[in-house]
Amino acid sequence: MEKVKISSGKLRGIRMLADKEGKFRMLATDQRGSLRRMLGGVMGKDSGEIGFKDLATFKKSVIKILSPYSSATLTDPIYGYPYAAKYLPRNVGLLLATEQTGAELGGKSGKERKSRLQPGWDISKTKRAGANAVKLLIYYRGDASPEVVQYQKDTILKIGEGCEEYDLPYVLEIVSYPFKEDEDKDNPTFAKRKPEIVMDYTRQFSKPEYKVNILKIEFPANLKYCKEFSNGEFDGKKREPTYNLSEVKEYCKELANISSVPWVILSAGVDIKEFLVNVKLATENGASGFLGGRAIWQDAAKYYPDVEKMEEWLSTSGGIISTNFMRHLRMLLLILTIRVLKVLLI
Amino acid sequence: MEKVKISSGKLRGIRMLADKEGKFRMLATDQRGSLRRMLGGVMGKDSGEIGFKDLATFKKSVIKILSPYSSATLTDPIYGYPYAAKYLPRNVGLLLATEQTGAELGGKSGKERKSRLQPGWDISKTKRAGANAVKLLIYYRGDASPEVVQYQKDTILKIGEGCEEYDLPYVLEIVSYPFKEDEDKDNPTFAKRKPEIVMDYTRQFSKPEYKVNILKIEFPANLKYCKEFSNGEFDGKKREPTYNLSEVKEYCKELANISSVPWVILSAGVDIKEFLVNVKLATENGASGFLGGRAIWQDAAKYYPDVEKMEEWLSTSGGIISTNFMRHLRMLLLILTIRVLKVLLI
Repeated sequence: MEKVKISSGKLRGIRMLADKEGKFRMLATDQRGSLRRMLGGVMGKDSGEIGFKDLATFKKSVIKILSPYSSATLTDPIYGYPYAAKYLPRNVGLLLATEQTGAELGGKSGKERKSRLQPGWDISKTKRAGANAVKLLIYYRGDASPEVVQYQKDTILKIGEGCEEYDLPYVLEIVSYPFKEDEDKDNPTFAKRKPEIVMDYTRQFSKPEYKVNILKIEFPANLKYCKEFSNGEFDGKKREPTYNLSEVKEYCKELANISSVPWVILSAGVDIKEFLVNVKLATENGASGFLGGRAIWQDAAKYYPDVEKMEEWLSTSGGIISTNFMRHLRMLLLILTIRVLKVLLI
Repeated sequence: MEKVKISSGKLRGIRMLADKEGKFRMLATDQRGSLRRMLGGVMGKDSGEIGFKDLATFKKSVIKILSPYSSATLTDPIYGYPYAAKYLPRNVGLLLATEQTGAELGGKSGKERKSRLQPGWDISKTKRAGANAVKLLIYYRGDASPEVVQYQKDTILKIGEGCEEYDLPYVLEIVSYPFKEDEDKDNPTFAKRKPEIVMDYTRQFSKPEYKVNILKIEFPANLKYCKEFSNGEFDGKKREPTYNLSEVKEYCKELANISSVPWVILSAGVDIKEFLVNVKLATENGASGFLGGRAIWQDAAKYYPDVEKMEEWLSTSGGIISTNFMRHLRMLLLILTIRVLKVLLI
């Protein structure tokens, strides 16, 4: 890998994101749309009825209880940061999301996605607010309509320029999505294409012209379609495998070769069992850590709006992973959610 | 004390300056003129012959060895930061000095001082560079010529505005100086005036209009003229006392009443023994910590340019305080310089 030149401001910011060993153990709490749907489901309401107070209250509890265990915490500037700022410990880095939730649909298929930036929260304001890094989420398929691809690239470039101007580290999150006729979120065709999709965007956006400092990317395979886990390991549903574990490890290694910037794994709302395997495989094969959210705290939402129970779950018995699974993977017998951030990279 | 409103950016910055208990144990390495004279003395050269490399090398060693023991470290952006940035641990706050070294002389006496700002290092750039706070040093006497007083006030206001604009915490350092005919750095008249001088500027610059977040001020008395230490306790020279210890404690308490912002004690190059007493008295009577430099590391300069010996002194046997002194104050028998930052506030 070539030597990288970096400004002192960016260097200091990046070091605030990693722990003392230089590993990224980052907690995401920037969900908006998905959290609205989650809380709506729990409360038997339409997600449109879930208001500011619900999001802010939930995020505050997660940040208060879990952020001390993270090397850095990502949140959004509207619902997350204002009420949770004082709970973020001094030695935990802060990332602020700069995109709006969701995406504008477009392209030939009508299913392709264009990202929108959060009005009023440009890089200058994000830096002023005390963030150690900016996070931009981009939904991306390199094989989408050229107009959509270009729009997403331009957005990525724009934030890259801003981060350069204000010496703020740039964490680019990329999430692929199914949009072709033969694709679906949970089908073998899309699962089979996943490794190449992830490698394609990693190759693209680790180019120096985008000025990205850390890539937050998907695990380069869908483990539910991996032979060793396809018997319903994670959700009880059996699937036709499209690759095996040693191929998956190779995808991780190829990613490490392709990327010229550090990369971390996102959780995309898979359950904690699957996320632990994702992180283990990725970090053993070149990833620098993880930036995960829902996988870690989503089960706490069940207790909302009972904040006390929710916080109790987050701080004690939450996230006990079934002993069945444990036996299988020969990991610890019991892992508490609160310890997940600590143990994941050990 | 009234409730203080503060932006999230400033709040996050201030928390980076203090340790987990909220105490400021800060190390200063922003000396330029005084360090040139110090190294010049050691090397038998004129201070003008002491170049960039000497200052940068010395500062790098001090920051490398001592900053991990501080809650935050202050340095200058020219000689200190570029070469020492990578040695500053992630959990240690960074303050950058925004003034040029020295001062322009003026006023009726021709001895009064006007501060000059560092060209090219405005607040915007300081924030970009990754600093958690700005430090401005102002030489000040409220009874100087009105034109000089106004000039200094305007400079203080200007930096306050900049810090507000970029949400960067503002640490204002104020140092008095003798300029009247009957005053001298080390005479009873100036020593006797010291408490009122310090209270006067604290009263002035903790006013909200100056937008100062932390005051870095002098100990409100010269302990060498305090009855209990005036027998030559610190430097072997006997002096006529002008106050006693209980009066000095009262000055500290008055300061705490006067200041509406947290205040920390500077070392002004007194030796480590005197500084320890300063910090003990001040923090027991209202100060929030210290920001000290020369008192802590000046004896390391004796070994310059032997970097290895210098670093050995800084990391091991340096700063052993005479057992005589220890018996007197019933403090620890031996204190290593490297532990000073740890023990001062315990």
